[in-house]
Amino acid sequence: PEKLKAKVVEFAWKIIKLGQDDPRRVIHSLKVGLALTLVSIFYYYQPLYDNFGVSAMWAVMTVVVVFEFSVGATLSKGVNRGLATLVAGALGVGAHHLASLSGEIGEPILLGFFVFLQAAASTFIRFFPKVKARYDYGLLIFILTFALVSVSGFRDDKILEVAQKRLSTIIIGGSACVIISILVCPVWAGQDLHNLIAVNLQKLGHFLEGFGNEYFTSEDGDSKDAKSSMQEYKTVLNSKNSEESLANFAKWEPGHGRFQFRHPWNHYLKVGNLTRQCAYQIDALNGYLNTQIQTSPEIRNKIQEVCTEMSMESGKALKELAMAIKTTTQPSSADSHLENSKSATKNLKSLLKSGIWDDSTDLLAVVPVATVASLLIEIVNCTEKISESVY
Amino acid sequence: PEKLKAKVVEFAWKIIKLGQDDPRRVIHSLKVGLALTLVSIFYYYQPLYDNFGVSAMWAVMTVVVVFEFSVGATLSKGVNRGLATLVAGALGVGAHHLASLSGEIGEPILLGFFVFLQAAASTFIRFFPKVKARYDYGLLIFILTFALVSVSGFRDDKILEVAQKRLSTIIIGGSACVIISILVCPVWAGQDLHNLIAVNLQKLGHFLEGFGNEYFTSEDGDSKDAKSSMQEYKTVLNSKNSEESLANFAKWEPGHGRFQFRHPWNHYLKVGNLTRQCAYQIDALNGYLNTQIQTSPEIRNKIQEVCTEMSMESGKALKELAMAIKTTTQPSSADSHLENSKSATKNLKSLLKSGIWDDSTDLLAVVPVATVASLLIEIVNCTEKISESVY
Repeated sequence: PEKLKAKVVEFAWKIIKLGQDDPRRVIHSLKVGLALTLVSIFYYYQPLYDNFGVSAMWAVMTVVVVFEFSVGATLSKGVNRGLATLVAGALGVGAHHLASLSGEIGEPILLGFFVFLQAAASTFIRFFPKVKARYDYGLLIFILTFALVSVSGFRDDKILEVAQKRLSTIIIGGSACVIISILVCPVWAGQDLHNLIAVNLQKLGHFLEGFGNEYFTSEDGDSKDAKSSMQEYKTVLNSKNSEESLANFAKWEPGHGRFQFRHPWNHYLKVGNLTRQCAYQIDALNGYLNTQIQTSPEIRNKIQEVCTEMSMESGKALKELAMAIKTTTQPSSADSHLENSKSATKNLKSLLKSGIWDDSTDLLAVVPVATVASLLIEIVNCTEKISESVY
Repeated sequence: PEKLKAKVVEFAWKIIKLGQDDPRRVIHSLKVGLALTLVSIFYYYQPLYDNFGVSAMWAVMTVVVVFEFSVGATLSKGVNRGLATLVAGALGVGAHHLASLSGEIGEPILLGFFVFLQAAASTFIRFFPKVKARYDYGLLIFILTFALVSVSGFRDDKILEVAQKRLSTIIIGGSACVIISILVCPVWAGQDLHNLIAVNLQKLGHFLEGFGNEYFTSEDGDSKDAKSSMQEYKTVLNSKNSEESLANFAKWEPGHGRFQFRHPWNHYLKVGNLTRQCAYQIDALNGYLNTQIQTSPEIRNKIQEVCTEMSMESGKALKELAMAIKTTTQPSSADSHLENSKSATKNLKSLLKSGIWDDSTDLLAVVPVATVASLLIEIVNCTEKISESVY
């Protein structure tokens, strides 16, 4: 019983943590409950039930399946579902009519053939990557509705009436979702994408700002904390999928806040890709924070200042860019930080050229430091590209 | 009209290409058509229709929604749907009974409250990452069924009978999907994961085998072809999501071919993670194939042989490991290749230590070469880790 109690408490904490991490989750759950309760009025309220009858079921189903976390996802599913039902319903009625012309024995055979053909073709089309990204759900509903309408027409003569009632309840359910998701504390996929890109840049900036100190000075007390917070950049490495799905949803959203409809969302994906490329370089750099290969301290000391500056300044530039994205203003000092890091790069290069090391230096001890320097040069280049792409 | 014709031809080619890239897509489409046609017999065949009536609709719906590309995904959705319907149906009937005790006015209010509470709670639970990965669909169906059963109980007195018919048709539809997906040319997510891991290793190996020549020898005729085929490693960088979802599906699959039920699929994820880490290093290395920084040819020449060997041998080791994974045999010569690359690393290190360069050497020109050497050392380390993890 003690163990059970501990587990319950642990579970409760997990729930609270999940809610605290993103309070919009709690609100979203309440919104879904609200929408579902609203649509079930179709059952409770007599005049409405007289009108729609069991078709009210489709409103409930639509709400459960269509209501997603962000406005864009909800709109995308709602529009997909509505349009697909409309088109497939019309085609299904047509197929039913065509089949009914061919007599009692021919009808089920012809209907079965239609259903097979349509299902196979639509399933295949779902494999197109572009279709999968934007219309996957629509095609699913298309297959479903066509099969239901054409096949149940075999049994039900009032097929048109059924199809029409179903469509209207689906539209009602879908609209309820869209309206509630827009009016009650909306979660915009576009805004999330915007923030994600900015936060990712910031994480890289944070790593770079800390890197110089971590690498060149020996460990002290708070080093572990700093190190673990620097590791946050790792999430950037695998952010491609979430960025792409957010961009897909954002394209469905109407204008909101600072974003207009047809905001250049694809541009965010470009910045995201460059950010990720920079993150790969940083990951390679991160390897040198932990490796045990000895480097001679004298060599380190000689380039310490300039390398720290390169990393610090490019980190600051990235943070500035992140802030500029977040507030959609012109970055005030990113350019000057970038210039600083570029001139530090030049200094490093001339330092290397001038042959600062005496001849007896062990080259093996130079290699790690040289690599760090070289990766930093690449990162400064990357930062410049990102800065160009942000404008 | 000419333009239209060209577009139609282009579209047709795209379709053919999509099918040729993976012929299993065509087969999958036909399987979906087959399953759907089979379940629609519930409408056509009189004795079956007498038994199930319009509930046959749920069999059709189940087939459309549950049938996925791989056996694992189909099973996961089918089991999720079946269990969720069972549990939510039972709870829904219970909620209906409880509410009906509270009189005519209280009933809809209490029912609405139940629906709200259940929808909000289940929606929130869906945010748990672990739940989302494996039971997301089940919870969706849970919300749906609970709402439908408890609410439609308000209108329909034969609620138990309806729930039972619905459950049995859903089970029939789900079983049809599972049986067809297993019996007709099955697509195993486990096998796909297995292949993906092997192919990813192979791509890295291919890059490393080519790298030495690309970097150290100047361009010649077929260099462009080789370069573009080497870039295939880039897909490895973003393979995390597909690996994880394949592993999730694979866990649902029964034993098949060389894999038993409860095959250690998580182990593949570990190998996959190491592979990706290696890929990040390779991406940093790839940057040096294209940069324009001059390096003195004399320095290059001095370490050319040993670096080429490091990259070539670690590439061969990776390819051997990939082959060993693919055929689930012990890798025959991966160890010896790994040993070769490690001794090449040692040679490189002693070469660097011995001070091979004369004092007048420009250190700036050394840096890129040193970086390449250092990255190669890291990659050899990575390869060793991968090789350990494969056993």
